[in-house]
Amino acid sequence: MSQLVSVFREEHFNAAHRLHNPSWSDAENQRIFGKCNLPHFHGHNYELIVKVTGEIDPETGYVIDMKVLSDIINEKVLNRFDHRNLNEDVAEFKDLNPTAENIVVVIYNLLRPSISEHLSLQIRLYETPRNFVEFPVS
Amino acid sequence: MSQLVSVFREEHFNAAHRLHNPSWSDAENQRIFGKCNLPHFHGHNYELIVKVTGEIDPETGYVIDMKVLSDIINEKVLNRFDHRNLNEDVAEFKDLNPTAENIVVVIYNLLRPSISEHLSLQIRLYETPRNFVEFPVS
Amino acid sequence: MSQLVSVFREEHFNAAHRLHNPSWSDAENQRIFGKCNLPHFHGHNYELIVKVTGEIDPETGYVIDMKVLSDIINEKVLNRFDHRNLNEDVAEFKDLNPTAENIVVVIYNLLRPSISEHLSLQIRLYETPRNFVEFPVS
Amino acid sequence: MSQLVSVFREEHFNAAHRLHNPSWSDAENQRIFGKCNLPHFHGHNYELIVKVTGEIDPETGYVIDMKVLSDIINEKVLNRFDHRNLNEDVAEFKDLNPTAENIVVVIYNLLRPSISEHLSLQIRLYETPRNFVEFPVS
Amino acid sequence: MSQLVSVFREEHFNAAHRLHNPSWSDAENQRIFGKCNLPHFHGHNYELIVKVTGEIDPETGYVIDMKVLSDIINEKVLNRFDHRNLNEDVAEFKDLNPTAENIVVVIYNLLRPSISEHLSLQIRLYETPRNFVEFPVS
Amino acid sequence: MSQLVSVFREEHFNAAHRLHNPSWSDAENQRIFGKCNLPHFHGHNYELIVKVTGEIDPETGYVIDMKVLSDIINEKVLNRFDHRNLNEDVAEFKDLNPTAENIVVVIYNLLRPSISEHLSLQIRLYETPRNFVEFPVS
Repeated sequence: MSQLVSVFREEHFNAAHRLHNPSWSDAENQRIFGKCNLPHFHGHNYELIVKVTGEIDPETGYVIDMKVLSDIINEKVLNRFDHRNLNEDVAEFKDLNPTAENIVVVIYNLLRPSISEHLSLQIRLYETPRNFVEFPVS
Repeated sequence: MSQLVSVFREEHFNAAHRLHNPSWSDAENQRIFGKCNLPHFHGHNYELIVKVTGEIDPETGYVIDMKVLSDIINEKVLNRFDHRNLNEDVAEFKDLNPTAENIVVVIYNLLRPSISEHLSLQIRLYETPRNFVEFPVS
Repeated sequence: MSQLVSVFREEHFNAAHRLHNPSWSDAENQRIFGKCNLPHFHGHNYELIVKVTGEIDPETGYVIDMKVLSDIINEKVLNRFDHRNLNEDVAEFKDLNPTAENIVVVIYNLLRPSISEHLSLQIRLYETPRNFVEFPVS
Repeated sequence: MSQLVSVFREEHFNAAHRLHNPSWSDAENQRIFGKCNLPHFHGHNYELIVKVTGEIDPETGYVIDMKVLSDIINEKVLNRFDHRNLNEDVAEFKDLNPTAENIVVVIYNLLRPSISEHLSLQIRLYETPRNFVEFPVS
Repeated sequence: MSQLVSVFREEHFNAAHRLHNPSWSDAENQRIFGKCNLPHFHGHNYELIVKVTGEIDPETGYVIDMKVLSDIINEKVLNRFDHRNLNEDVAEFKDLNPTAENIVVVIYNLLRPSISEHLSLQIRLYETPRNFVEFPVS
Repeated sequence: MSQLVSVFREEHFNAAHRLHNPSWSDAENQRIFGKCNLPHFHGHNYELIVKVTGEIDPETGYVIDMKVLSDIINEKVLNRFDHRNLNEDVAEFKDLNPTAENIVVVIYNLLRPSISEHLSLQIRLYETPRNFVEFPVS
């Protein structure tokens, strides 16, 4: 009888960003986003936890090989986000405000095609140790 | 198309408490609660994680502004619990044993009216790094 | 009216293990398991989080007494796993590869009979701070 | 040739306390100690790191057996401080304000006689994850 | 008899930066600084631990009031560094590469005049959980 | 004027070991080392913090390039210790009990020749989050 288990892999990246809505006035941006709207960017050590749920393979004892999962995260996310400016360097945020909420959905969409459709996927993203987000919701 | 995301904010407070059931004998209190029943109180650095789930606002990219959420937690919980004696100073525990289980339900009830009804709410409370509780259950 | 709350207790154990499928060639074991297949074992500080969900007892304010829960975990799991070689010393892994996925299912099955059937149970197991698993899935 | 090594053992205790100088007015106590002066006490999860420095014993490979060190800390400190009210229950603080600075010196003095005079001793005490103290200074 | 104790206060700030030596070619900057030289900046959650060593004041039981120390760190460092771009927004890094080593010396020099000369000062700065620096050396 | 700064790099490895003195009887080994003497080995997630102290290079702003330091640690220590059995696979422990104290001295001796003699070196090794050692002493 097969057993469903969730496995989690944590990775991290360092990036700069700035919160800004170009359709608002500077005053409105400042009022809503405060210091996060400062023009020259700030940054974070983002911690990313990728959760994959599926059946244990009886041959390997794995749901997914953690080294394979780590390689996928590195190729699809870290290679494009790490040591970058999310607003300036990452195409997905050209017209999308890089809040933690929007980043976590973008990361899910980047990883989903590389994970077997028999496996479900959930992403948790720490912007700071005290502020974090999760998608999809459970 | 709207996206549901969970956001989490961690806050902390330091408080004294004592576990005691006034309808029991001293011996019964001692037998059940052990050192937690000692008469002069002990205390904890409580860590509180507040999870709010809802749709991303397309204007801000936020589910809820973390500064607003932090202000609500400070006003409704920390102002009343931090550096206090839960048994002596907090009305909700006048007739309710301040176990972690009861504290987390009280905190949920204090925060729920201040969070929009379109958003769902869950609380995790760490009494120590190795003992923690969550309400409502998921 | 009764309230359902989840309580969590964290314990830890140190163990050696090795990943190996005896029906494969050495080359195949090496290709799939890499360094985890090295013949003389390696080891981990496993962190174990046991989650128990149920109603708050109105007499105690507890879902389950954390000292009782800790004693059960010590008797059923730590006494048999701590400072042991999972492959050599723990009968459940005689014919089962001690991956984190298989270990977490074994731990669940060891604890389930000792937890009241009115309470639900979930186990999270950290093999390293960056690799962890959960069973059953939520 | 002998080698000097430092070994560290971490233990923890939960206690209540209140900062108060009985020779001052209530207003002065409130002005200096703020919320830490509230009359009904608050509390902390204190983390204690005991550092012992000495030569490696060539027979055991130990500077000091960590189990022995842990037993000493439990007997001399935790048995008297854990789940207690430092102001009310611990004789050393009858006339001494239980600030982290004073607590760490008291703990040093409690442990020093039980550690061989060939070994040097230093104590670090975390009152919260963000506030901690060390004695003697290095 | 007076007692010397060290007290530590941890604070944090989020900032963007980029490593670059303007007297080198782009190729040389890229060769030495790698991803840290990418032109649009990246960022970190910097954790700052300020250590102050001095005698315990017998009136207060404090070496220095932690609230006062926290206020000094906020006024002198966080107000100028938090949510900023160190290269663009902080005058001290106009002609100084904002490596962790240079940042920790700058922070020491910003704080030193505000700490009583009877107290000694040491700064530890975490750029990531795995990379950190300390000044002056001990 | 040159500035002395300490830089720290954290790395980790997973290994199996067993504490045993071959010149003692089995009973004596069991009495002194307890569960750490069990014959089939146990293991740990060792965390290693390497501290290097020296002058800031005015050209780079570095004491030592953290990538270079990480590469040295990987080549000299992790390649030989990670996922190994210290007693069986690492020559230095053929006749030396792999206590944390002895391991930290061995690691220092492996790294010292690869670090410039103008730089001083200190190693901290966590065997568990609650048991750790440091060499040379400070």
